[in-house]
Amino acid sequence: MKTVSRIKTVQMLLQSARKTGTIGFVPTMGAFHDGHLSLIQRARRECIYVAVSLFVNPLQFCDPEDYLTYPKDLPSDQRKAASAGVDLLWVPSVDEIYPPGHCTFIEVGEIGNRWEGAARPGHFKGVATVVAKLFKIVQPHRVYLGRKDYQQVRVIQQMVRDLHFNIALRVLPTVREKDGLAMSSRNVRFADDDRKAAPILYKALCHAKRLVSEGEDDCRRIVRQAQSLIRSESRATIDYITMCNPVTLEPIERLTGKAVLLLAVKIGNVRLIDNVELILPRGKKRRIGGKEGHQIIDVEGNED
Amino acid sequence: MKTVSRIKTVQMLLQSARKTGTIGFVPTMGAFHDGHLSLIQRARRECIYVAVSLFVNPLQFCDPEDYLTYPKDLPSDQRKAASAGVDLLWVPSVDEIYPPGHCTFIEVGEIGNRWEGAARPGHFKGVATVVAKLFKIVQPHRVYLGRKDYQQVRVIQQMVRDLHFNIALRVLPTVREKDGLAMSSRNVRFADDDRKAAPILYKALCHAKRLVSEGEDDCRRIVRQAQSLIRSESRATIDYITMCNPVTLEPIERLTGKAVLLLAVKIGNVRLIDNVELILPRGKKRRIGGKEGHQIIDVEGNED
Repeated sequence: MKTVSRIKTVQMLLQSARKTGTIGFVPTMGAFHDGHLSLIQRARRECIYVAVSLFVNPLQFCDPEDYLTYPKDLPSDQRKAASAGVDLLWVPSVDEIYPPGHCTFIEVGEIGNRWEGAARPGHFKGVATVVAKLFKIVQPHRVYLGRKDYQQVRVIQQMVRDLHFNIALRVLPTVREKDGLAMSSRNVRFADDDRKAAPILYKALCHAKRLVSEGEDDCRRIVRQAQSLIRSESRATIDYITMCNPVTLEPIERLTGKAVLLLAVKIGNVRLIDNVELILPRGKKRRIGGKEGHQIIDVEGNED
Repeated sequence: MKTVSRIKTVQMLLQSARKTGTIGFVPTMGAFHDGHLSLIQRARRECIYVAVSLFVNPLQFCDPEDYLTYPKDLPSDQRKAASAGVDLLWVPSVDEIYPPGHCTFIEVGEIGNRWEGAARPGHFKGVATVVAKLFKIVQPHRVYLGRKDYQQVRVIQQMVRDLHFNIALRVLPTVREKDGLAMSSRNVRFADDDRKAAPILYKALCHAKRLVSEGEDDCRRIVRQAQSLIRSESRATIDYITMCNPVTLEPIERLTGKAVLLLAVKIGNVRLIDNVELILPRGKKRRIGGKEGHQIIDVEGNED
């Protein structure tokens, strides 16, 4: 495995790799956990050449303290990447990515303004800008992203489509600890008692999934139950819990096909995000209230 | 020459052209005049394959009337392009470029917020966005731009640099009518008397150039003389006249190397922009006022 910093070197190495076959790319901010490794391993299985970028992008942080204290462990990352079969680990400096005078930024409108975008103004502008730059430099055939950052995936999908990147995005399932906590580089920040309380998020997601599998389609009811479950944990402070259209991320009231439940919750001082995709079972009987009175109908699950 | 509309067709045609050699690209809004043709002819001389896009980009218009009445003459454009040796004339629909749900936009910060950006809010966001999309689709080796749209050239240069487009930009001189009026598709809108008044802009630019060639380095003095020359024409209303750093487009007070004089002036109902690059002659003696009193010094022209 080569570890390099300069854009020119990356471009040179990839130019010759491109002739041999498919290039897989995993953009990361380092501090690798099993979530990163699942992306890398999948890229390794599917591609001739695997490039991983490790760049803690200052543009996507709102909170300077969060940026400055973001977990870093390059030697450990290098070992993990090398043993997962990475060909190229690209660790650029901030000046390499944003040289003096850099002033071009990418925004993705409403999809990037809701939820995490509202909680962290400028966050997705930073994400879209750096990802577009990384994609232009690496020019991968396939890019591997984790579903844990659901809105981030949507922002990147949208940008790839709108700016005509010829890239296949592979979105892989969230990797979890045994107790259900979604893996995240920021999990190292947990105080012990907070860590023990953190699986309440996963419990709430599982509860929502069970409700839907039983035919529940009233999003407010699903959200309310998830909220009260999380509130039963005194260390938890809810930022948002919402049921959304999985494409537009607009909130929905009635589940008719596929939706995503997004949540952001603070446990102690650590802010966590997580999500679950919810699909109303095909042919599941459900009750509809409203003007027509109660009637039993069949619902076609509208998976895309 | 092929005239096509669909992105997929463009990509297919260019994929095979790319194997044969250099692709030259001229992005336009149509209504071709000799300025466009000079770009096309230069591309024809330098490239194996010449692609021209013709797209009146709604995103870069502030004034809906200006958009709706923008001059259009596709049959004439096709004839002119074909006889200039264009290989591919790409005329996409608005829906092709901005399909439903498109929401990614590119901004270039301060360079795009000044002057034309201030007079036409959102203009350069529209320009940067559409140009990035055209570049990603065509993937040209060389792009030909006219210097008449000086700030637009700077915005595109900046975006090409910041987003790592591997494209050589060729910036060609403004083509003018015999009386000095810069060619522009909007010139067809002139009432007769206004058209006769329009060369006052070129006279002002020439006067500024003469002043600088004689060693004048006080930008306020240059601007003031250009202003009073233009104001001598009763049909003219100045929007802005400014001397700027040619890279940052920040206004400057003292000319020490190269600068650009940018102006926007309305003659009757037609708003015109024009510009001239000004270079203080090397070794030209000039007088400096100020605290140190009067002294004669040599100035090194600082061309880049």
